[in-house]
Amino acid sequence: MSAELAASSRDPLVALRERLREIDDLQHAGRVLGWDQQVLMPPRGTLARGRAFGTLERLAHERLVDPRLAALLDAAEAAGEDPGVVRAVRRDHERARRVPGELVAEIAEAAAEAQPIWARARETSDFALFAPALERAVALRRRLAGCFPEAAHPYDALLDAFEPGATTAEVRRLFDRLHAGLRPLIAAIAARPEPEPVVGAFPVESQRALVLEMARAIGFEDDAWRLDVSTHPFSEKIGPGDVRVTTRYDARNPLDGLLSALHEVGHGLYEHQVAPTLAGTTTDTGTSLAIHESQSRLWENQVGRSRAFWVHWYPRAQELFGEALADVPLDRWLAAMNVVRPSLIRVDADEVTYAMHVVLRFELEVALLEGELAVAELPAAWNARTEELLGVTVPDDARGVLQDIHWSFGELGYFPTYTLGSIASAQLWDAARAAMPDLEDRIASGDPSALRAWLGEHVHRFGRTRTSDEILRSATGGPLDPAPLLRYLTDKYAALYDL
Amino acid sequence: MSAELAASSRDPLVALRERLREIDDLQHAGRVLGWDQQVLMPPRGTLARGRAFGTLERLAHERLVDPRLAALLDAAEAAGEDPGVVRAVRRDHERARRVPGELVAEIAEAAAEAQPIWARARETSDFALFAPALERAVALRRRLAGCFPEAAHPYDALLDAFEPGATTAEVRRLFDRLHAGLRPLIAAIAARPEPEPVVGAFPVESQRALVLEMARAIGFEDDAWRLDVSTHPFSEKIGPGDVRVTTRYDARNPLDGLLSALHEVGHGLYEHQVAPTLAGTTTDTGTSLAIHESQSRLWENQVGRSRAFWVHWYPRAQELFGEALADVPLDRWLAAMNVVRPSLIRVDADEVTYAMHVVLRFELEVALLEGELAVAELPAAWNARTEELLGVTVPDDARGVLQDIHWSFGELGYFPTYTLGSIASAQLWDAARAAMPDLEDRIASGDPSALRAWLGEHVHRFGRTRTSDEILRSATGGPLDPAPLLRYLTDKYAALYDL
Repeated sequence: MSAELAASSRDPLVALRERLREIDDLQHAGRVLGWDQQVLMPPRGTLARGRAFGTLERLAHERLVDPRLAALLDAAEAAGEDPGVVRAVRRDHERARRVPGELVAEIAEAAAEAQPIWARARETSDFALFAPALERAVALRRRLAGCFPEAAHPYDALLDAFEPGATTAEVRRLFDRLHAGLRPLIAAIAARPEPEPVVGAFPVESQRALVLEMARAIGFEDDAWRLDVSTHPFSEKIGPGDVRVTTRYDARNPLDGLLSALHEVGHGLYEHQVAPTLAGTTTDTGTSLAIHESQSRLWENQVGRSRAFWVHWYPRAQELFGEALADVPLDRWLAAMNVVRPSLIRVDADEVTYAMHVVLRFELEVALLEGELAVAELPAAWNARTEELLGVTVPDDARGVLQDIHWSFGELGYFPTYTLGSIASAQLWDAARAAMPDLEDRIASGDPSALRAWLGEHVHRFGRTRTSDEILRSATGGPLDPAPLLRYLTDKYAALYDL
Repeated sequence: MSAELAASSRDPLVALRERLREIDDLQHAGRVLGWDQQVLMPPRGTLARGRAFGTLERLAHERLVDPRLAALLDAAEAAGEDPGVVRAVRRDHERARRVPGELVAEIAEAAAEAQPIWARARETSDFALFAPALERAVALRRRLAGCFPEAAHPYDALLDAFEPGATTAEVRRLFDRLHAGLRPLIAAIAARPEPEPVVGAFPVESQRALVLEMARAIGFEDDAWRLDVSTHPFSEKIGPGDVRVTTRYDARNPLDGLLSALHEVGHGLYEHQVAPTLAGTTTDTGTSLAIHESQSRLWENQVGRSRAFWVHWYPRAQELFGEALADVPLDRWLAAMNVVRPSLIRVDADEVTYAMHVVLRFELEVALLEGELAVAELPAAWNARTEELLGVTVPDDARGVLQDIHWSFGELGYFPTYTLGSIASAQLWDAARAAMPDLEDRIASGDPSALRAWLGEHVHRFGRTRTSDEILRSATGGPLDPAPLLRYLTDKYAALYDL
């Protein structure tokens, strides 16, 4: 491309990049507004924030649906633009032009308004308080699904927003196989004695110090990342050089905060390692939520709950926490972080029973969207199905149907990606170990950089220029498959629980 | 207005509010991005943040200069829109469309380029390094002033951006009177012995606790404000219900942090008390920098450095800081926070000599803009005039002409507002005490709520719908007048220094 052409905005390559950059800038602003709202905004700022957020989304949406963008994509592709960028943006364009701008704005506004209502409802375990907001959210999602009448199932349209290409039928099939494989494993574990918990005083400052040290070993860089506290841990890349993760700390129990942090650092590392050349194109982010979740779960579970990882880090934890761990051998520490116990709260669930929480939500969401289940009937349905899937009784809605933040944002179609991510994480873990037979030894020596590099090379760098399916096939040799996850869980817990 | 009309976007009242809301939303996002960058953004996020910020500014500017906005303002005014809103927005529109987009872009570019050069120049005290950037900035400001050929003096056009309606002639007259009044006061104080400083250990956590308690008494509400730390204290209203102030803490010297915090809380209270009905109109903010500064200085100086205020708060400070203040009587604490000493650095100046720093900058800025002074001659002029105004010798340019960040942004016309604010603060303080003769007693009893209410009623609630001059005339009975400030300073320091 000549300098003259590059300087001309009639060059389709330049013109496309300019347009994408503007969309990216608006989304950048939206991400800052969202992070700020979740981490530190004073609650009375909610109304104005929802409005500003809605306007940013609308302006980005207007630019994304502009027919001139479609024309530019064609011209730029012909002129040699990265086909992965063209494909991802074209998909966004085509999805977005199906959805009216007012609906997009209403969804954003409804989410901002519902969130504090949900928080109050959960505090007081008062589902009725949240029900109208949830009804509005479900109605909005039905309208959203209605924008994609060609979908085999209305829920496909929602799934597709988080997991491009996923279908309700495929999720059901994968979940059925997983459910069938997990049931006997959960039953076998339940018959074994429960490991002793680790109790004591674990100062928050020491927890934060340990989190930072582990995060830095994995890839956290002080001048390009932040670590903050939020009730619901999350991660967000604001833009290149600005990756933010949050966790939470419980001074009596360090495991939740440490493992949540490893989870979020896994998400952050994916974003951090996207190729810098994709900056400003809107494609420099994770390709799907399932692949994203595969990264967080791989670092949380396959790495962060493994003996190899703690062979290196446990002495440091003992140093930092002093007395509290002085008489706790490594085996007890590992057993405590790998307790399997059917329980009420998804975010506290272990890696074996977690999928059951997701199956529950997937079934209920599909039923809500289909109209088979009314919002008013939701708590009863939740409680009954929890009993069936997990064998536990829900004592109140705070610990039941109100526990998750997702529905306060109206985010139906999101939950399945957690378990699709677990499935993918086991596939990628197998592939990484096949490529680097000494990987666990390296992790045990305190150096996970080989895994970081392998993931960067095979998953992260592509951003959205490759689909989930392409990444999985090229990195692991096949599509989503629950067998490696079932094998990983069965082998690991057979050893831990003497099955 | 009928419900039918209200729903129609052809109703000029509704259409205007929709347009203003969109501008306000873009500015809201810009404020969050700016706050985030100053308080907590990882440094490697700078490039992407600058880009996103620039896009938001451009989108807001496009909407502001849109000729349809002018037409809507006329129609909405005829239909009964708040004339204060119409006047303020029309002024923004007319100012914005006078300045060509390329000039705006060049000014932004020049500022972005000059800033790191200035930082390096200050570090090495090398004015020659910064001179070309400053020459470019002055030339750009001349072009900017040239967009307003009707101004009596080119500097008027620059002043007007920060202080609508202010003129160079008026500022000169006010500053001459102030200068004449302050000279003998400063000389008289200089002849007296210097008060003993307060030294010791003042834990940051205790400082923060005290700041929060004082801020809450003044008007800080936990669910609508934030208090954070930044190198350069500042305040920002993100939007209604979201006011943010920052301060900084020095564990050896609590006065800087406490008084900076009171200063910023004063700014914050102004924003917090703008009428909620102005939300979303872009007029729900301070009417000018001088009135804003009058609020911060009133709480910092007239209240925060007064005996009445500390009669209540000093025992609490002694409680929080323990040993460090155990043997420090209230008089010594008050003397330490009211030390007057001509010095080199504006931001460290006391409330008596501060104006001299501003007079210096005002004179030099006017001379630079007029072409009476060349950039190359600036350091010599700075040093000579500093000697005359403050009686101190400038040892190097880092502590002289290079000390302020403002010129690195090319911001000529900003400095005078600091001292116009001091002048207004004394006028408002007199008016408030005249209206409430027991005001100082109330403050001494720990309850400044009457002052908060009076300022809300007479200054804050109007936002930008009243001009500086209108506010001052209605609240104090007259226009800007340096006499009350001179009287306040003379009386206060006569007592403190036994003059």
